[in-house]
Amino acid sequence: FLERIKLLFIPICLQMLHESIFPHTFLQILEYKSQNVSTADVFFPSSSFFFPSSDLLPAMDGDTKTMTFLQEVVDILLAYIVESFDRETKVIDFHYPNELLQMNNWELQDEPATLDDILISCRATLKYAIKTAHPRYFNQLSTGLDMVGLAADWLTSTANTNMFTYEVAPVFVLLEYVSLKKMREIIGWPDGRGDGIFSPGGAISNMYAMLLARFKMFPEVKEKGMSSVPRLVAFTSEHSHFSIKKGAAALGIGTESVISLGFVLVQGFVPFFVSATAGTTVYGAFDPLIAISDICKKYNIWMHVDGAWGGSLLMSRRHRWKLDGVERANSVTWNPHKMMSVPLQCSALLVREEGLMQNCNQMHACYLFQQDKHYDLSYDTGDKALQCGRHVDIFKLWLMWRAKGTIGFEAQIDKCLELSEYLYNKIKDREGYEMVFDGKPQHTNVCFWYLPPGIRYMEDKEEKKKHLHKVAPVIKARMMEYGTTMVSYQPQGDKVNFFRMVISNPAATFQDIDFLIEEIERLGQDL
Amino acid sequence: FLERIKLLFIPICLQMLHESIFPHTFLQILEYKSQNVSTADVFFPSSSFFFPSSDLLPAMDGDTKTMTFLQEVVDILLAYIVESFDRETKVIDFHYPNELLQMNNWELQDEPATLDDILISCRATLKYAIKTAHPRYFNQLSTGLDMVGLAADWLTSTANTNMFTYEVAPVFVLLEYVSLKKMREIIGWPDGRGDGIFSPGGAISNMYAMLLARFKMFPEVKEKGMSSVPRLVAFTSEHSHFSIKKGAAALGIGTESVISLGFVLVQGFVPFFVSATAGTTVYGAFDPLIAISDICKKYNIWMHVDGAWGGSLLMSRRHRWKLDGVERANSVTWNPHKMMSVPLQCSALLVREEGLMQNCNQMHACYLFQQDKHYDLSYDTGDKALQCGRHVDIFKLWLMWRAKGTIGFEAQIDKCLELSEYLYNKIKDREGYEMVFDGKPQHTNVCFWYLPPGIRYMEDKEEKKKHLHKVAPVIKARMMEYGTTMVSYQPQGDKVNFFRMVISNPAATFQDIDFLIEEIERLGQDL
Repeated sequence: FLERIKLLFIPICLQMLHESIFPHTFLQILEYKSQNVSTADVFFPSSSFFFPSSDLLPAMDGDTKTMTFLQEVVDILLAYIVESFDRETKVIDFHYPNELLQMNNWELQDEPATLDDILISCRATLKYAIKTAHPRYFNQLSTGLDMVGLAADWLTSTANTNMFTYEVAPVFVLLEYVSLKKMREIIGWPDGRGDGIFSPGGAISNMYAMLLARFKMFPEVKEKGMSSVPRLVAFTSEHSHFSIKKGAAALGIGTESVISLGFVLVQGFVPFFVSATAGTTVYGAFDPLIAISDICKKYNIWMHVDGAWGGSLLMSRRHRWKLDGVERANSVTWNPHKMMSVPLQCSALLVREEGLMQNCNQMHACYLFQQDKHYDLSYDTGDKALQCGRHVDIFKLWLMWRAKGTIGFEAQIDKCLELSEYLYNKIKDREGYEMVFDGKPQHTNVCFWYLPPGIRYMEDKEEKKKHLHKVAPVIKARMMEYGTTMVSYQPQGDKVNFFRMVISNPAATFQDIDFLIEEIERLGQDL
Repeated sequence: FLERIKLLFIPICLQMLHESIFPHTFLQILEYKSQNVSTADVFFPSSSFFFPSSDLLPAMDGDTKTMTFLQEVVDILLAYIVESFDRETKVIDFHYPNELLQMNNWELQDEPATLDDILISCRATLKYAIKTAHPRYFNQLSTGLDMVGLAADWLTSTANTNMFTYEVAPVFVLLEYVSLKKMREIIGWPDGRGDGIFSPGGAISNMYAMLLARFKMFPEVKEKGMSSVPRLVAFTSEHSHFSIKKGAAALGIGTESVISLGFVLVQGFVPFFVSATAGTTVYGAFDPLIAISDICKKYNIWMHVDGAWGGSLLMSRRHRWKLDGVERANSVTWNPHKMMSVPLQCSALLVREEGLMQNCNQMHACYLFQQDKHYDLSYDTGDKALQCGRHVDIFKLWLMWRAKGTIGFEAQIDKCLELSEYLYNKIKDREGYEMVFDGKPQHTNVCFWYLPPGIRYMEDKEEKKKHLHKVAPVIKARMMEYGTTMVSYQPQGDKVNFFRMVISNPAATFQDIDFLIEEIERLGQDL
């Protein structure tokens, strides 16, 4: 019988696809009936229409139970926060994946758990989490935990809405408008004019920029695809972030068309995009933006500045000269969740030309962007992005900015750069250390090798290199096992594994830097 | 002097780009020095290195101040939650954008605000926010506020980490692993095998699926771009989500290569992707997946199921037959933030083939995905996505699943579908209503026109249609001004504006449906 249905079904299905699927056709109804006994019973051992006790609805139960539960969770979180900032606490209670899978029952069940079980799950989750707020956690570009930012994120979760229209996020849409304008002013675009959007991270912001650049040069690409345009090529600095290549792969440009070594005009390829980096991920280096902008202008190429990491230095009078020329860019990625310690995620793409984002990405979904709404439709910003629903990432930045003021962010950034200079000065001539690049760091990145006494004086260069390559991974593994601190390491080109220290946590102090050095030496002395 | 620098700078800059920017060159240092007086002084009226009082660091101040502040915010949030579920409260306190911009000082300042000001800002933000938890808020596919989900999101903010590696998110990476496996089991893939990732929304999940399909058929596209592959064409149902077109535009395929009317083989174009919809955005219709899978199999085309809206029906024994055949798909988008009421955002892309996501998207960033780490590297999942940093979206789904069990989600989904059937039965023969499509809704979408008495008996069909087109926008505007309820409307093809009612809020009751009908009639009777 099922076979007969299928035979009948295929030609009619083609017809249905043609005419649109809905409304029901005879055959669809037939099919539904014939398959009404679900194959999924294995997932549902007990009967339907049962409401578990943990379905808390303040409107139904009165509030006591719900409020008590939420307050208990908050108490757990407050205790975790105090602990996270305490240097006596471990940064991490490390376990290997298979171990951790065994240490708790993480499986999803058919039956509901009690609220007490839920609280236990919350505690277990935090017990094995990394304390990213810990003053000795230096592992990523995003560290620290700002209390106002955290409060703002809690509020965002509670408001639980979506950025696509003013209709459902009136305040947040306005705050995005206000904040993007302020950021454009700081970039230096006249009167803060231009466009922008908050996106889910720097990689997506960079990809959006590349998308805009291509659309600007070849608007027909939107409808006709890459077959309508010449072979494109994008340029970027050697140590630029891998998201530039990811973007090129996704957009159908291909990673081979991302030239990272220099500016070479390849016959038959049209250069459309230059991504200059303001603060590379590993070295924290800044490309010379003014010079790059001259070239972009000469060849009429979109100039993007990937300031995901370094963009925040625009907030500092002492350091913003490193981005001189940024005001000449067509677009800028700037992630406040990195150097400004805004809770994850908060990444902005700023665009100089107004209207382009809308033209590039809009599809006019009529269920969201009705043209006969009763308010100013320019505040329905959802069609500027590839995303449909967009998480509210703005409130935490906005509230922190209110709390600190521009000068508060500046002080925080300056302090982190001062700490990294302190680290640099401390180790540059210290026995057993070698710097990966010469000169003072431009950002808070300090890249260095630690050479344990045992290999410090090895004569065979190759042998020494081979040993040195293993030092950082072992020290890092020990750091995690002891849980005392975390710092990243990596190889780069022909350079063997080195430590990349970064500081973005305003809770860190000079003493924490001292601690890091002592800890590396303690954990590495026997290697 | 600056002119001379520039002249000197350009050729050397080319050289620097070629050799990589870092380490410093003489010229860079020269440039930095010459521009050490920043042009940005306008943004920073007062002196540097000033720490505002609102920089709360539990480790520095002791905890009283921080904890008091956070508790005060929590109290504001708890009060807001109680209010949100109260039917006597307005869903929205609506103001036009320009009005709202005036009603509060939303501007960002140079100077810090006091913590009291911050609390005032929190209250103001919530005052003008949409109460998306309100039992009479029906405006989007994502409504409601689950208390366990909310608690989980607060914990996520507090843990403030990133999904790219096990190293920095051990528990969350494991919970993603556990939950994706469970979702694949429910889809029906053997032993829950396969792959997947949580992404920032259904549009990105759909684009990721398209990216995988293209890579599967033409892996060389990653390096060589679209010029290395034939002209591609994708198929999708007529009422599919606009993200399929957005994806095609972004990936360089072009929107004209998305065929939404049926399955036509176009000379010289290679079909590579079919996106079937399980629960269309407006009508809630389900494509016949079994029939579509037969076609995909025959022509060797990637079958994607966009179940962003309808995927959750897999949790219901009563309704999952509507997705029969989903187990034949190559990839499935499923957004728990819609029908399962998980706080925004929570969207999963599930993929049948293991390893493909990694191959398609990986760029081996050596600062994140070191190959000599001391744990099982398969848990470093970050390279599977286009994103670098990835927000932790898993914990709220996981904790809710624990709290409700599979049967709790089932009960919640069944209830919402029952409410929509109640609405359908109530209005299908009621005077003044016309249904937009025939037959019982397949999902909770009920699409209908309300004809006020004044136009109910108009004889001139065109005149009537013209009037009717204006009815829904006016009623909707009045709903927002009164703040009593919110429901979406839209035109579709040659159909004039109609209401699209959707129910995903488990707090809604039969009485709320009655209220909606009464309210539409009250607000529309004079039109």
